[in-house]
Amino acid sequence: MNYFSSGFKLGILGGGQLGKMLLAETRKFDIQTYVLDPSAEAPGRFACNVFQQGNLMDFDTVYQFGKQVDVLTFEIELVNIQALEKLESEGTTVFPSPKTLKRIQNKGIQKDFYVAHGIPSAAYSHFDNVTALKEALSKNQLTLPFVWKCTEFGYDGNGVKVIRRAADCDGLPDVECIAEDMIPFKNELAVIVARSAAGEIKTYPVVEMEFHPEANQVEYVICPARIDAQIAQKARDLALQVSEAYAHVGLLAVEMFQTHTDEILVNEVAPRPHNSGHYSIEGSYTSQFENHLRAVLGLPLGSTDSKVAGIMVNLVGEEGFSGPVLYENIETILEWSGVTPHIYGKTETRPFRKMGHVTITNENISEARKIAEKVKNTIRVISNNVN
Amino acid sequence: MNYFSSGFKLGILGGGQLGKMLLAETRKFDIQTYVLDPSAEAPGRFACNVFQQGNLMDFDTVYQFGKQVDVLTFEIELVNIQALEKLESEGTTVFPSPKTLKRIQNKGIQKDFYVAHGIPSAAYSHFDNVTALKEALSKNQLTLPFVWKCTEFGYDGNGVKVIRRAADCDGLPDVECIAEDMIPFKNELAVIVARSAAGEIKTYPVVEMEFHPEANQVEYVICPARIDAQIAQKARDLALQVSEAYAHVGLLAVEMFQTHTDEILVNEVAPRPHNSGHYSIEGSYTSQFENHLRAVLGLPLGSTDSKVAGIMVNLVGEEGFSGPVLYENIETILEWSGVTPHIYGKTETRPFRKMGHVTITNENISEARKIAEKVKNTIRVISNNVN
Repeated sequence: MNYFSSGFKLGILGGGQLGKMLLAETRKFDIQTYVLDPSAEAPGRFACNVFQQGNLMDFDTVYQFGKQVDVLTFEIELVNIQALEKLESEGTTVFPSPKTLKRIQNKGIQKDFYVAHGIPSAAYSHFDNVTALKEALSKNQLTLPFVWKCTEFGYDGNGVKVIRRAADCDGLPDVECIAEDMIPFKNELAVIVARSAAGEIKTYPVVEMEFHPEANQVEYVICPARIDAQIAQKARDLALQVSEAYAHVGLLAVEMFQTHTDEILVNEVAPRPHNSGHYSIEGSYTSQFENHLRAVLGLPLGSTDSKVAGIMVNLVGEEGFSGPVLYENIETILEWSGVTPHIYGKTETRPFRKMGHVTITNENISEARKIAEKVKNTIRVISNNVN
Repeated sequence: MNYFSSGFKLGILGGGQLGKMLLAETRKFDIQTYVLDPSAEAPGRFACNVFQQGNLMDFDTVYQFGKQVDVLTFEIELVNIQALEKLESEGTTVFPSPKTLKRIQNKGIQKDFYVAHGIPSAAYSHFDNVTALKEALSKNQLTLPFVWKCTEFGYDGNGVKVIRRAADCDGLPDVECIAEDMIPFKNELAVIVARSAAGEIKTYPVVEMEFHPEANQVEYVICPARIDAQIAQKARDLALQVSEAYAHVGLLAVEMFQTHTDEILVNEVAPRPHNSGHYSIEGSYTSQFENHLRAVLGLPLGSTDSKVAGIMVNLVGEEGFSGPVLYENIETILEWSGVTPHIYGKTETRPFRKMGHVTITNENISEARKIAEKVKNTIRVISNNVN
């Protein structure tokens, strides 16, 4: 198949920041792209060939959109699977496949899949609704504390809550859910695996999420993780095992816990480019976005090795500001070596909204870490509108 | 000034491959861009906010286009300078300035500028037209061989001819021109200098153009140049001297000869991103395109250091093919480590047309050079239409 400067059309469901960064690669290769997103202001409305506004959960919208393209992929899991299934049955190539997506979209099915495939993960119980969960709790069938997760439609921390006492369940939506053991962990790690339609597999190096000592919030994604080589190998092997079990096409981001006894447990997976791989744009020989594109097109995968160390800092809207965005002190951070801001192109900031990220690359990871901390403490995502 | 996700507008004259690669950076920073190009099929018609088709040499077109933006820059020297001058006089920021462009656009003026500023360059004579040149030749006032260059509107090798005997002048257009001494050289080198509106200056490492042993055609641009550190420093210092003399804002690509006696002479300059800096997208901490953007916006310049060695191979249309382009064996080169094709997005190939380039990055420059040669010998820019 001739993809380059040809009549070939790639469809992308979702035009958020992941779609936008994927489009940088389709432009580099001059591959025609169609993007569907519910927002007329989506960051991915530029740099595609055709942008269409529409509901990603609506069967007809997704189906009609998919009929226009040769290969269909997505940057978000919350899409209409039935439409993908129909498209696939009618001959459209859909990667990752609806089968893979089904196994991941619902967190209960995802956990069941780990058990069935001998993939180590936190113990859990699966409930049809919160009423059933509360009943189990009242009968002492559940041990506190645990992590409540709704099985579907959770995103970016929504649909997840730590339950420390029974009363914490009050106000939870009465939906299908799981109660997962809380894993005390030393490190939160992630490995991105690329798997092509031809079955070629490559894993990126293990990255480490460094948390704020008090706020329990990821502050830095660090590549390579500052962990023992044996642990890193174990994490990479586990990610590979997960990838082989899913037999997905495209990227699979595997988030993991390193416990205090150096067990590695899978936390959750995402079948798409992932926040934990953003460093790869500047840090790796082939970015996660280019490898996602190569994978879904059945092209050979690029090297996942790093050129230099990379650290990523998320840019999220400061609390107390909503309105037209202002990146305070961005000029200051641009003075420092190896600092690259990515501004996603959302015009309005809101507290905790993901507005961009900054990558810090350096030959020396300690130096990168120092600069990353200065970046984190300097740039602020605010607005002249204070609320 | 707030450039990021704001109402600020950058105008770019020219939407060829240089404009296209610059747009990758404006998207990364979410800076609004307007692009003007004569072709409705220009590679830079995507990824900008507004694309306008129009003649870059037409006063009114350029003037009206410029009136819409806050800062105006260009990716090609062949633009209407009078319109830029009027825009500048009316308060539009134009970088590089029309003053800089005037000193460069005409090769006679460029050479006179070198003499006036003590910048070493090949000796030359300046003629109002070819008739005058032929007269000088007939009076033995010119020594054969020499390089004939038209002073204006030459591009990509057009408007340059080696004159070995008087008859070689037959058929030259009767325009203003120079006759330049032929410099026997050991190496052709280039240094890209970034200079910001605030006067900050950074030079990229010296790159080396490696020629085909027979075809006298640049095959590889290699960074860093495989030359003596002292020669490299001399070349970088000379590029800095040229940059300071022009006091340009934006990039200045300085092409140089290293003679057999290790003199460094300036060949010519371009006030914009340049083919010799394409390796920087993958090889450098900050690409030439990002630094051009930073410079014209008065932002701090990014590090010009390399992460790893970078080699660039141009993709030009094969002789004998014209029509819808086909990148033969591109899948094969994608198998090799550190290989990144850039496909400019021109739908039709023609013999020698610049259709793209491939960057090869590697920790080890010898390894990169080996892969570059395999790339060069493998990918072919052809068409199913044979002519």
